[in-house]
Amino acid sequence: MARNPERRAALVDAAVAVLAREGARGLTFRAVDGEAAVPVGTSSNYFTDRDDLLFQVDAHLHRRLAPDPTVLTELLKGPRDRSLVLEFMRDLLARATRDRTGYLALFEMRLEATRRPALRASYTRSVRGDLEDGMEFHRAAGLPGDDGAVTVLYLAMLGLLLEQLTLPGVLDGVLPDVAVPDGLVELIVTTIVPEDREGEEGEEA
Amino acid sequence: MARNPERRAALVDAAVAVLAREGARGLTFRAVDGEAAVPVGTSSNYFTDRDDLLFQVDAHLHRRLAPDPTVLTELLKGPRDRSLVLEFMRDLLARATRDRTGYLALFEMRLEATRRPALRASYTRSVRGDLEDGMEFHRAAGLPGDDGAVTVLYLAMLGLLLEQLTLPGVLDGVLPDVAVPDGLVELIVTTIVPEDREGEEGEEA
Repeated sequence: MARNPERRAALVDAAVAVLAREGARGLTFRAVDGEAAVPVGTSSNYFTDRDDLLFQVDAHLHRRLAPDPTVLTELLKGPRDRSLVLEFMRDLLARATRDRTGYLALFEMRLEATRRPALRASYTRSVRGDLEDGMEFHRAAGLPGDDGAVTVLYLAMLGLLLEQLTLPGVLDGVLPDVAVPDGLVELIVTTIVPEDREGEEGEEA
Repeated sequence: MARNPERRAALVDAAVAVLAREGARGLTFRAVDGEAAVPVGTSSNYFTDRDDLLFQVDAHLHRRLAPDPTVLTELLKGPRDRSLVLEFMRDLLARATRDRTGYLALFEMRLEATRRPALRASYTRSVRGDLEDGMEFHRAAGLPGDDGAVTVLYLAMLGLLLEQLTLPGVLDGVLPDVAVPDGLVELIVTTIVPEDREGEEGEEA
């Protein structure tokens, strides 16, 4: 395996672009070589097979789409209330808007996972890990809402990201008084997350 | 254009199967002919082009994935409360589980819509129409929860369907006391939909 890390990173970025633009079926070593403008055959020196390439795309997107640590630190200076949960969800939406290609590649990987058991196993661990980390972060930060609320919020935001990245016209104006996406993110958070932490203990799971 | 309605229906069903199994990029007239086991060239007698095929797939799935009217009639005999909303969501999940191929094809169509403006326009109208019909149904049935709650519920269910159909292991066991998917659907509904209709008027949008 070739070991030039800049070239490897450029190939993985090229794979993300091919996934988003052409779909998983368009993701071949040859297409990645073409997208990265390197000689045909280069990708095969960096990835053992297509599963290995998809695995590295997942690992790369995990870092590329993560929250900016300085943004997190700044946000965590504020009170640990529902408005802070809203700020985190706004940050997530802003990241998806800025890196539309990266998020579309994640959705393509989900559909490809239905066809490739190795990808399904590794990608499941990766997404599950993110969800569990999100719950742990929420608990450690003392934010309102138990693990159940975090899970429902995760699903609603997943639905919102899918809708906004694929068919943005669906939600636009459907609620006359709610701007999309900003007002809608606020509606999601206020609907799902309790205003404060009172009464959380002893809640039914 | 050829007019044999059974053959047209068989070709559209074949297109759904190709979409789910191979992704949008695998959807060619030749692949549809092969899947339907008809002579090469048959699809081109039934569809003017690929956009026309995708448009007919959308129209077909709209009917194929719709709730069974007899189930709706039966459910509507019960009290118009939050439990009834839960029953409707359980029915949606059951339909997605029974026709996994049809729902995966819908997700493939969303990603294909990012690449094809004609599909994006027609599919947006179709999904928006379903959401508005859902809101109208909810209001007319006198179910608890305003249009905002219906929208948030729609997004959480969209996220749940995507997760369950692509990476079912992610949610399994993440909440120790909540069975997936049945208990999770109940958690989604009780988190988002108010228990009764009290106080709905005058709520902020």
